[in-house]
Amino acid sequence: MTQRIPIVENILSANDRLAEENRARLDAAGVFAINIMASPGAGKTSLIEQTLPRLASLARVAVVDGDIATSLDADRAAAAGALASIQINTGGECHLDAVMLRGALEQLDLTKFDLLIVENVGNLVCPASFKLGTHKSILVASIPEGDDKPHKYPGMYRGVDALVVNKIDLLPYINFRMEFFTSGVQALNPDLITFPLSCRTGEGMDAWIDWLIQNVKRNS
Amino acid sequence: MTQRIPIVENILSANDRLAEENRARLDAAGVFAINIMASPGAGKTSLIEQTLPRLASLARVAVVDGDIATSLDADRAAAAGALASIQINTGGECHLDAVMLRGALEQLDLTKFDLLIVENVGNLVCPASFKLGTHKSILVASIPEGDDKPHKYPGMYRGVDALVVNKIDLLPYINFRMEFFTSGVQALNPDLITFPLSCRTGEGMDAWIDWLIQNVKRNS
Repeated sequence: MTQRIPIVENILSANDRLAEENRARLDAAGVFAINIMASPGAGKTSLIEQTLPRLASLARVAVVDGDIATSLDADRAAAAGALASIQINTGGECHLDAVMLRGALEQLDLTKFDLLIVENVGNLVCPASFKLGTHKSILVASIPEGDDKPHKYPGMYRGVDALVVNKIDLLPYINFRMEFFTSGVQALNPDLITFPLSCRTGEGMDAWIDWLIQNVKRNS
Repeated sequence: MTQRIPIVENILSANDRLAEENRARLDAAGVFAINIMASPGAGKTSLIEQTLPRLASLARVAVVDGDIATSLDADRAAAAGALASIQINTGGECHLDAVMLRGALEQLDLTKFDLLIVENVGNLVCPASFKLGTHKSILVASIPEGDDKPHKYPGMYRGVDALVVNKIDLLPYINFRMEFFTSGVQALNPDLITFPLSCRTGEGMDAWIDWLIQNVKRNS
């Protein structure tokens, strides 16, 4: 196994350099960019679908969707009102990296946007290791995936700037110990700003939208 | 990116050889082994918790749990009646591999068991690429993770021998198009045996247990 470590380090450090280039390109155009990560099915695409109409008159938004296969997510983002929607098919890779995002940025006229939403591959492990050059990393957790996830996937919870806890409408039907969940989050990332919400009912969406708009304005 | 491909191929082929050794060791002891894979929170540990008491008088079961951190899952398996329960902490790796399983097998007197249940790291991508030497691969899908998962994670759905669709008790509260889900599964893996069930209510568990017992008996 030891043979793998230097190779992985080389990949990561090359990736970091490209991430810095992506960041510089975004900053030059005044685009605020977020990287949304989560388990498969936690609700990344649903969050984007619910976010886009609420930003309609407030920010010009592009969406970049990473998936192993299909363009289902980019299609949903386009239908929800993204001015541009680009699908990256990773061809089996379990995460986005800075090279892939660079390829997507080259297809966009960044001067036409205020906000770039990047939806990573559904995976609670690998995406945490690959910087993209975005300004903030967002983790979407969900009630049905269980209250033990911060304890079991510490790398992801440690590295993010905001946490969306989705599907709170399912709380009556699921044994989810909110205190156990919160204690795990606080041990890893004490000041993590958290948005409990339901993409299905819309409950809690306002606080998330306010935070996003504040960040876009601060960046412009 | 091309530089990575031969290295990954070498790792995979070394892994395959070790997986064959693991299989030979299991076969020599007459142990039937399954590799349970799923997204984080789909219900792998809950399935094991519900399965163990139902097998109590029928098979002697050992459980090997793979996680990035904590021994929460192995603790739950032990509490549910596993005669032996071993936690593998992968130290950040996003999947189990044949080396890790070999390490666990070395800690077990395999002559004392009929069934080995391996619970992989929660990840719908990477574990599909690493054979362990187990006899059957089981995928646990769950209703709240959504009906599009076969379409978006084809590698995992293509490579498994049985599919458990967990959390069917949540169907009334979630917009899950069963036909869209099933069409994705059938395109990738037409004869995949499927067990819709709820670990919470117990509905559907009997068919899963019957299948498991048949396989253990066939192997002994």
